[in-house]
Formats: sequence, structure tokens, C-alpha cells
Amino acid sequence: MTKSITLKALADLIQGTIVQGDPETVITGLNSLSESLPGDVSFLGNAKYAAQVAKTQAAAVIIAPDFTERPERIAFIAVPNPTLAFSAVISYFGHEKKSRPPGIHPSAVVSVSAKLNAEKVHVGPLAFIDDDAEIGDGCIIHAGACIGPGVKLGLNCIIHSNAVIKDYCQLGERVVVHSGTVIGSDGFGYEFVQGRHVKIDQVGIVEIGDDVEIGSCTTIDRARFGKTIIGTGSKIDNLVQIAHNVVIGPHCVIVAQVGISGSTKLGSYVVMGGQAGSAGHLNIGDQVTVLGRSGVTKDLPGPGHYTGFPARPLHEGRKLLAAPGLVPGLQTKLKALEARLAELEKRLPG
Amino acid sequence: MTKSITLKALADLIQGTIVQGDPETVITGLNSLSESLPGDVSFLGNAKYAAQVAKTQAAAVIIAPDFTERPERIAFIAVPNPTLAFSAVISYFGHEKKSRPPGIHPSAVVSVSAKLNAEKVHVGPLAFIDDDAEIGDGCIIHAGACIGPGVKLGLNCIIHSNAVIKDYCQLGERVVVHSGTVIGSDGFGYEFVQGRHVKIDQVGIVEIGDDVEIGSCTTIDRARFGKTIIGTGSKIDNLVQIAHNVVIGPHCVIVAQVGISGSTKLGSYVVMGGQAGSAGHLNIGDQVTVLGRSGVTKDLPGPGHYTGFPARPLHEGRKLLAAPGLVPGLQTKLKALEARLAELEKRLPG
Amino acid sequence: MTKSITLKALADLIQGTIVQGDPETVITGLNSLSESLPGDVSFLGNAKYAAQVAKTQAAAVIIAPDFTERPERIAFIAVPNPTLAFSAVISYFGHEKKSRPPGIHPSAVVSVSAKLNAEKVHVGPLAFIDDDAEIGDGCIIHAGACIGPGVKLGLNCIIHSNAVIKDYCQLGERVVVHSGTVIGSDGFGYEFVQGRHVKIDQVGIVEIGDDVEIGSCTTIDRARFGKTIIGTGSKIDNLVQIAHNVVIGPHCVIVAQVGISGSTKLGSYVVMGGQAGSAGHLNIGDQVTVLGRSGVTKDLPGPGHYTGFPARPLHEGRKLLAAPGLVPGLQTKLKALEARLAELEKRLPG
Repeated sequence: MTKSITLKALADLIQGTIVQGDPETVITGLNSLSESLPGDVSFLGNAKYAAQVAKTQAAAVIIAPDFTERPERIAFIAVPNPTLAFSAVISYFGHEKKSRPPGIHPSAVVSVSAKLNAEKVHVGPLAFIDDDAEIGDGCIIHAGACIGPGVKLGLNCIIHSNAVIKDYCQLGERVVVHSGTVIGSDGFGYEFVQGRHVKIDQVGIVEIGDDVEIGSCTTIDRARFGKTIIGTGSKIDNLVQIAHNVVIGPHCVIVAQVGISGSTKLGSYVVMGGQAGSAGHLNIGDQVTVLGRSGVTKDLPGPGHYTGFPARPLHEGRKLLAAPGLVPGLQTKLKALEARLAELEKRLPG
Repeated sequence: MTKSITLKALADLIQGTIVQGDPETVITGLNSLSESLPGDVSFLGNAKYAAQVAKTQAAAVIIAPDFTERPERIAFIAVPNPTLAFSAVISYFGHEKKSRPPGIHPSAVVSVSAKLNAEKVHVGPLAFIDDDAEIGDGCIIHAGACIGPGVKLGLNCIIHSNAVIKDYCQLGERVVVHSGTVIGSDGFGYEFVQGRHVKIDQVGIVEIGDDVEIGSCTTIDRARFGKTIIGTGSKIDNLVQIAHNVVIGPHCVIVAQVGISGSTKLGSYVVMGGQAGSAGHLNIGDQVTVLGRSGVTKDLPGPGHYTGFPARPLHEGRKLLAAPGLVPGLQTKLKALEARLAELEKRLPG
Repeated sequence: MTKSITLKALADLIQGTIVQGDPETVITGLNSLSESLPGDVSFLGNAKYAAQVAKTQAAAVIIAPDFTERPERIAFIAVPNPTLAFSAVISYFGHEKKSRPPGIHPSAVVSVSAKLNAEKVHVGPLAFIDDDAEIGDGCIIHAGACIGPGVKLGLNCIIHSNAVIKDYCQLGERVVVHSGTVIGSDGFGYEFVQGRHVKIDQVGIVEIGDDVEIGSCTTIDRARFGKTIIGTGSKIDNLVQIAHNVVIGPHCVIVAQVGISGSTKLGSYVVMGGQAGSAGHLNIGDQVTVLGRSGVTKDLPGPGHYTGFPARPLHEGRKLLAAPGLVPGLQTKLKALEARLAELEKRLPG
């Protein structure tokens, strides 16, 4: 059932010229140069990837006419703009994004007090928009999503299926929230009173800047007071935990399964690698990169790279990660020294 | 668009007296003493936090009339009960919790065999309550939540949007389940038969005690047989994994992204820090605290603190976490010894 | 409210014979031999577990008539086929699985262009099936699940409540997807252009083989181009992150909270223990087992066991995990050597 196309048909599709290779070559998929498998077509859209052409497993590569380093085993189609042409290939093999035209599906539930222009917003089946929510023009609310009371979405946000935005949270423009993600649940705060954990009310909100994208099944808790903040342009992956009162600065990248504890503040352009974590009430400076699986236990000044648990500057952290590997050698050396010392002691008796 | 209020208007709002500071000071938010930023108002509700007043960045602090250690840079409003007064501030800046009056939304689907009193239970839009489920009076089932067949919810539970409680699970009274959380999915159990993983039926349930709170996107699997148990008063954060047949004792605190493997038993008042994990079939004793990112690999007697991977008693575990940092020093010392020994050997030739 | 039954009534229920123990013994639950608690009934279905009978805490055990090693403290009921008999006990104590007969619930939303046979498929309340989706006969789509446009489900799949399958993803036969799981969200890919992270379109799909089971709140991202692949017979636990373009081979086992970064390829029969992770663009060979909490940073040839961070072959990895524990001993030895050396130097002055 996989789609396929001959090189000739592909060249016709993108109005290109076969400059090398058998027109009857069958193309069965597409990928980047580095990830192509036999049967795939790829493209060279940027001169800096030219060296990858020699190494690609792709059966065919779409190039600009002036690209001449063509390995014999690969077929080439020349077009004026390979990147543009590749979009047509994507449309053929992949799937065009399903369009979501404006309108409110009859099965959706939209509060009468919600503010939205039904001619400029898409609300999918079985979605729910609660009282006083404000939905900016151009927003797409997918099936099953729940938009809480008083929530504000800026222009052109996309809330995917079954995502939840809780009461009064505020999103900027062009924010994308993927499926299953929960924004604005209560922070995890209790006071220990007479043998019991008594809930501390969490009355703040989550405020998300423009152009933020948040992956699937990620949780961002509302502040105890005030705001949990995700800065403009920041990108958050799947299954990330952002605790109450955390501040993520602008243009940060938070990779999957990272956890950031309460009230920790990240500057701008911070990168946290996958499965990393941070303790609470810390400051992580501008342009800090924390490598994957590292654990931050104190303030990290930026810019700089950090690794390990506890996270230390890259050079030092790498040494520490390597240190256990040096122990056996130390043991051996110590044993040799001991033998030499015993020998000396024998020859120089008390 | 952020709300603001003058000190004077704020004092009026809470019926307090400005005892220090300019009545025209503009207040733009609120927070705890330790987390306040310039422009915030905070409060001193408990004498034990008195020392934080000197260090707070808050522009104004609400105090009892007898509190006299007032730094000049801060404005102060005196009221008889600062904690109570602060609730009014929260209402002004924050948002009062949306009330969820009893009643079944017409878009909700409630099985005819479900047992609930529609005049005492709130069932939100597009929620689903399956056959034979029993919903205690005072429960709030938010939009999109799914309550499986035969599930029992005690009095005054809150099930947030798009949470799922699967077949026959039992919750006590005042249990809160946040959005996206799944209680009672199948445990992860397979037998390896002739090159394939064959599913072992998971026929038990999850049983949750009174006053338990469970965060967002957390997963608690049903038992293979019998019950996975969450004890009374325990609090579980976001993105936590509780495997089949785990027993969490009463009044435990399980922080975000912890994973507890099958059949492990926690006593009472156990704390597991963020991103910690435990292997299966272990016993973690009463009042054990496992620090964040630690990995439990064998039984831990309580009470006591443990850290590291494998988790060891705090003192020992900290030493082990520090040990790699000692290796370079050992190398240096060893080199020095080697040189001194060589010198001796030279002077005492064979 | 817990069910209970006397030994006598239990014997009647399973048409067995009490061969030892008081018929009035009250049985209050059931479990495996190793996990039974006092009051439970268990069974010996396989001779290889015979030794567990001596150690079980069960009050009663169902056995075949020829099993004679019966500790006095335990009651025994003999039946021809204990495994079969135990199913009746499960039905009594546990709950039979709720049947989900074919039919489309009136509250479900099914696109007119979706292909399914309403007499052979169960679509639960408030579920949504989008345009051009193809649902194989025998499928069960639980309440609140969202099946995206162009999705294909093979025969007899089960999609649990509030799970989401995004656009054009393809599932084989007998695939089970548990609640809250999201299949086919966008991969986490951005290009850094002039100070901003610009989204790279993710136009591929997720392709899942036959007999795959996927736990709750797990995220499997669609490929940038081409396919993210989950091989036939593989089993994935809860809260697992599978990034774009990952390939999981057939019959793998991925335990809870594992994260696999983009484009990494797993062979067949790979096991990744809980909370383990892998960097991107790696190859993990056939029959590799990565122990829990390990971090894979380079290719791992199979077969073999690996542990630690970075993950190394088991023997080496265990040594490294143990190395920090050796450091204090090294320090002590070094100090002793130093003293002996100083003594020698004193006796052999320059």
C-alpha cells in the first residue's frame, strides 16, 4: 500500500530534468539526505549539506542545475529551487496538512459568555470552551480540547485534540499546544500540619508568550500566586514537567521528559537536554545549555554548558563523569607501589 | 492589561491602615514574601516567617498591627488578620475559583445504570459516566472526563478535565484527580512464549484512599490481581508512574516524574523526590525520604534519608556522589608518592 | 465492602475438593503465590512455581490433586486444572471485562467519509473519528478517543478513552493503545534562524505493526519525513517518549518513562528498562538489554546487556557504578603508603 513513483513521473511532477539515472527507477519514499534509505528521494536545498550527497543512501536527489558532484549510484533531478520542488514531493508521498476551516462543530460546547468570532475560529467536534474564555481570530481548537473559564488565547493559536487549558491561563499569539498536554493544573504545594499534608491553594495562572510550542502530555502548573511564565519563542517537548512559579525565559528549548521544580527561573536561550532536571528556587542564566540527563542543584551562571549530577561546567562535569573509569587504574598503580615499598622495607630493615 | 491598584485603594479593599509608605504606590501583583518581585504585595501570616520581611522584594506587606520591624523601603498595611485579608487581595488580583454547581450538563453522557444524585453532583460538558459507576454526593466531574464502568467515587471527589478512571477502580472521599491522568490502565505484564510477548491479563483494580490528590498526566496501573493501593492522604505530583500492584502507604508525597515499578510497597509518610525511581518488588519503610533523581534498588528501612543510584543512606550516598571529585587528587598524590619511591630506590640500588 | 467467601463456598464455586484446611476459613482476595497476603487465595498452575507454595502468605492455594508438599498453615483445594479454576475465582473477586459490543454511540462523531462497518466496530460515547479514517472490523474505540483524518486501524484494535491518534498514522492488527496516549504529534524539530527557533514541518507518520501494545500517557511523534516505526509485537509502557523518526524493531519491550531521541534505531527483542534514555541517531542492536536508568550515548552492538551512563557492557558498567565506593579505600591505602614512605625516607636521609 506504500506509494511509489518512477523517477520519470517524479521529474514530471516537479517539472524538473533527469540529469543522471534510469527514468524507470522506482522511488518509494522521501527523507533528508542523512536519513534516506534505499528507494528514497531527497534534496539538496542548502549548499552547506553538499557533502552529505556523497554519503546519502537515497536513490535520487533533487538538486539545483549547477550541482555537479554527482556519485554515479544516485539519480539526480535538477530544478531551479530544490526546496520548493521537495514540497511537491512531500505532498505526493506524505499528506497535506488537513485544513481546519473556521466554524464551530455542532457537537462542540461553547459557553454563551465565551468571546470568539465563529467565522474566524475553528472549534472541532466535542471540544469545550468554558465561560468568559476569549479565543483570538485564526485559532484552531481541535476535537476534545477543553478551554477553561476565562482563558485567553491570542491570534492564531492551535490547541490539539484532548489538550486542556485550565482556568484563566493566558496564551499569546501563534501558540501551539499538542494533544494531551495540561496547562494550568494546580501546583504541588502542601503544608504539613499535624501529621497531614494540607493543600495550599494555587491561585495564580500560567502565562505563555507568543510563538511558543508545547509538545504532547506535558504539564505546566499554575503559580501558587502570580504566574508561571513561558517566554516568547520558547519550545517545549513532550512529557515535560514545569512546576508552579517557574519562569522560562524567551527562546528556550526544553527537550522531552525534563522536569523543572517550583520557582526556578531560566533566562533566555536556555537549552535543557532530554531527561534533565532542576531543583527548585534556582537561577539558570541566559544561554546556559544543560546536557541531557543532567541534574541542576544550584544556580548556573550563563552563558555556558553544564553536565552531570550535580551539574557542573562542561569540562569539569565531563572529568567527573570519567572519574569512575580511572579508579581501576589507580588500584593497580597503588598495588605496584605497595610491592615496591615492601621490597624497600625488606632491604632496609628496622 | 495586568491589574494594578494603589496602596491606598488596597488598604480600603482590605479595611486596613497604611502604617508606612506612600498611599500612591502602585501595586501590580502579589506573592509570598520570599518570591515577591518589585511591585508585589505580600503578607506576614505567621510569625515564623518574620525574618523574610527584611529580605523581601515586595513593595508592600500586610501585617498585624504589632509587627514593628519595618524596613523603610517597604510599605505596610496593618490589619487584624493578615492571612484573611490576603484572600481579598487574591480575589482582586487572581481569580476566584470557578464554581461548579450541581447538575448534569446536557452534553454529558451518563449511563442509566450509573448511581448518582443529579442534584448533588456536577457533571461537566462532554463527560462520560459508564454503566454501574457510583458517584458520591458533592463530586465534580469536569468536562471530558471518563468514569469507567463500576467505578466508585466517594463523597466530594474532583475529577478534572479529560482525566480517565478505568473500570471498577475505587476512590475514597475528597480525592482530587487532575487533568490527563489515567487511573486503572492495564499493568505492564507479559510472558515470553515462543519468541513473543504474550499479555498477562490484568484483572485487579486501583484503590485510592481518602484525601488523596493526584497531579496531571500521571498513570496508576491496575493490579494484575488484587489492588494497586494509594493510601489515605497521599499526594502524587504530575507525570508519575505507579505500576501494577504497587502499594503506597498513607500520607506519602511522590514528586513529579517519579517511577515506581511493580509490586513495590511504600510505608507511611514516605517522600520520593522528583525523577527518582524504584525497582520492583521492594519495601520502602515508613518515613523514608528518597532524594530527587535517586534510584532505589533494594529494600530501604525507615525512617531515614537515602540518595544516589543505587540509593544509600544519606551520609554514605553523599560520599559516593562526591567520590568522583576526589579521583584527580588521588592521581596527583599517587604520582608524588611514585616519584619519592623512585628516588629512594635510586639511593638504595638492588 | 470487600468481597469474601468461605473456603467451602470457594471449593463449590470451582467444583474442587478441600484436601486440607478448615472449610470455614474466610478468603478475602486473590493473588499470585509470591504476592499473596494473608486472606488471599492463590493457585499453582505451573510446576516450576512449586517452591513458592512453601513461602506464600496465601491462606489457601488451588492445586492439582497430585501436589503433595502442603505446608500445614495453608488450606488447599484440589481441581483437575488449577489455572482454569482460578479464572472462576477472578470472576468472583475481580470483575469480568466489560464487553463492548459493536455499534456507534449516538454521542460519538464519525465523519461521513470515515470507512467502518458500524455492525462490526464499537465506537464509544463522545469519541471522534475524522475524515477518511479507516477502522478495521472488530476495533473498539473507547469514549473520548480521537482518531485523526486518514488514520488506518487494522482489525481488532483497541483505542482506550481519551487516547489520540493524529493524522494519517497507521496501526496494524490487534494494536492496543491505552488512555491519554498521543500517537503522531509533531516531532520536536526547529532550525535556529536569526535568534529564533523556526519550526521544521513534520510531515511523516507513525506506523505501528501488529500486536503492539502501548501504555498510558505515552507519546510517539510522527516522522519529519517518512515514518516513525514501532515493530510487530513490541510492548511499550506508560509515559514513554518516542521521538520523530525512531525505529523500534519487532518484539521490543520499552519500560515506563524511557525516552528515545530522534532517529535512533532499535533492532529486534531490545529491552529498555524503566527511566532509561537514548541519545539520537544511534543504533541499538538486536537483543540488547539496557538496564533501568541507563543512558545510551553511542551505538550498542547486540546481543548484550548494558548499564550505566554512559551505558557500557554489563560487566564494565557495573564496575563503573561500583567505582565511587572504592575511592575511600584508596584514600586510606594511600595515606598508609605515605606514612611508610616517610618512615623509610627518615631512615635513609638524603
